Amino acid sequence: MERKPYVRKVNFYETDQMGIVHHSNYIRWFEEARTDYMDRIGYSYARAVAAGIDLAVVDAYMTYHSMVRYGESVHIYTEITELSVARMRLDYRVVDAETGVLRTEGYTGHCFYDGKKQVPVSLKKALPELYELFESLNFH
Amino acid sequence: MERKPYVRKVNFYETDQMGIVHHSNYIRWFEEARTDYMDRIGYSYARAVAAGIDLAVVDAYMTYHSMVRYGESVHIYTEITELSVARMRLDYRVVDAETGVLRTEGYTGHCFYDGKKQVPVSLKKALPELYELFESLNFH
Amino acid sequence: MERKPYVRKVNFYETDQMGIVHHSNYIRWFEEARTDYMDRIGYSYARAVAAGIDLAVVDAYMTYHSMVRYGESVHIYTEITELSVARMRLDYRVVDAETGVLRTEGYTGHCFYDGKKQVPVSLKKALPELYELFESLNFH
Amino acid sequence: MERKPYVRKVNFYETDQMGIVHHSNYIRWFEEARTDYMDRIGYSYARAVAAGIDLAVVDAYMTYHSMVRYGESVHIYTEITELSVARMRLDYRVVDAETGVLRTEGYTGHCFYDGKKQVPVSLKKALPELYELFESLNFH
Repeated sequence: MERKPYVRKVNFYETDQMGIVHHSNYIRWFEEARTDYMDRIGYSYARAVAAGIDLAVVDAYMTYHSMVRYGESVHIYTEITELSVARMRLDYRVVDAETGVLRTEGYTGHCFYDGKKQVPVSLKKALPELYELFESLNFH
Repeated sequence: MERKPYVRKVNFYETDQMGIVHHSNYIRWFEEARTDYMDRIGYSYARAVAAGIDLAVVDAYMTYHSMVRYGESVHIYTEITELSVARMRLDYRVVDAETGVLRTEGYTGHCFYDGKKQVPVSLKKALPELYELFESLNFH
Repeated sequence: MERKPYVRKVNFYETDQMGIVHHSNYIRWFEEARTDYMDRIGYSYARAVAAGIDLAVVDAYMTYHSMVRYGESVHIYTEITELSVARMRLDYRVVDAETGVLRTEGYTGHCFYDGKKQVPVSLKKALPELYELFESLNFH
Repeated sequence: MERKPYVRKVNFYETDQMGIVHHSNYIRWFEEARTDYMDRIGYSYARAVAAGIDLAVVDAYMTYHSMVRYGESVHIYTEITELSVARMRLDYRVVDAETGVLRTEGYTGHCFYDGKKQVPVSLKKALPELYELFESLNFH
């Protein structure tokens, strides 16, 4: 069970004139958390890309519960919530690092994509090792 | 009826190593399209902010249909699809400027927010002129 | 003589919690202005890239004279200030669109680079037409 | 003597279609390294901002020696190279985390600025503790 969060400090350049982290940064934090998640499970995203397979983003959603400010850090919890040979979905929960108060939740949907041939692929066929790893972590 | 699109040229810095516009840029394009929409209807977002009212983003969704590349431009169509005194939703349709092929669709949900008092407000009370303008454009 | 500026409206997401455009955005505006400059002189950057040649950035400088805020627009004046077969330099002057007050100045240095072979090239040999165009505009 | 580097992993969204980290990201990495430097010396940038004092950026320079790619990490070395009561300069050296190969060098110039009064200030008067800390580290 993957429970260790990705720890992220707010960068000053991510604030906006409302004095909070601009809402457009969370989709980037999700990508960082996803990459970190793959590092932790032992199959880096860079390795998948090097093997020719992208986790192309097909959709993304985020709902903003409370604001994050400069000087704060967040913990991002990532988990696989859907998986097929062609697609997967990851859910993210961003909480304040100190208090655990919920900041933002969301998900990203992905299809497995052969970057060179520019076609969707079955991950089970293209990278069976990664597929099995994802499957072992998808307990929904 | 608001039908004129926001025209947006791709910036080189918006591409990623897959050779396409990185998926995190569309939420920023939505903000640009929203701002442009307000300019067109005659009540700029800067004017709302100057009057102390933000359209704070409460959630956002995007679904990616086809890729946009450097050298291309897009047209973004914006419309109000939900409106109450406390909240609104805008939908966006990003199409290729030349062919009209659909690239990305999505929406942003907003609450009306008093930036100084840091509380949600009724737009009808806070900025009645803007509320009526939105209402006249919300034909769903 | 290239005197028409690139017109750029500030995006909300470019502001920071000091209430101004964050200083990291200007290097991106320079890129936009450079691209716009090439469009105006009749040889788009996308065309150079498609022909295999990048204007790889080798250094960049910016000096910030006064702040730009949300709701404002700027005019960016671009000109070629150095040119050889291997390298060039472009200077940028960012002024307020209404008052002409100087906001930021700077430059970017470039080498001509064959993206496929991953080697620096002579622009005079690689894209003579573009080299001659640059030369005709470099009156310093 | 401050010799511990800031460690930074490349984010996928920082790459461009040339397959490298886009040159506009380094000025943001400098800001992160500067913030990290202040954390290490025991006076966080957030604390200075909370006390009303910004290190407003007055100019910035970067020279790009070699490219950074996705999957890599860098070490960023920061040091104070100029200091007066009104201004300071920090220099940055970005090297590959594994090989130590130089990637990018640069600097940022700053003036001390009272964000509320919107005027430049003497750091020695405004935040003497921070000024003395900087002075003890400025060995050039």
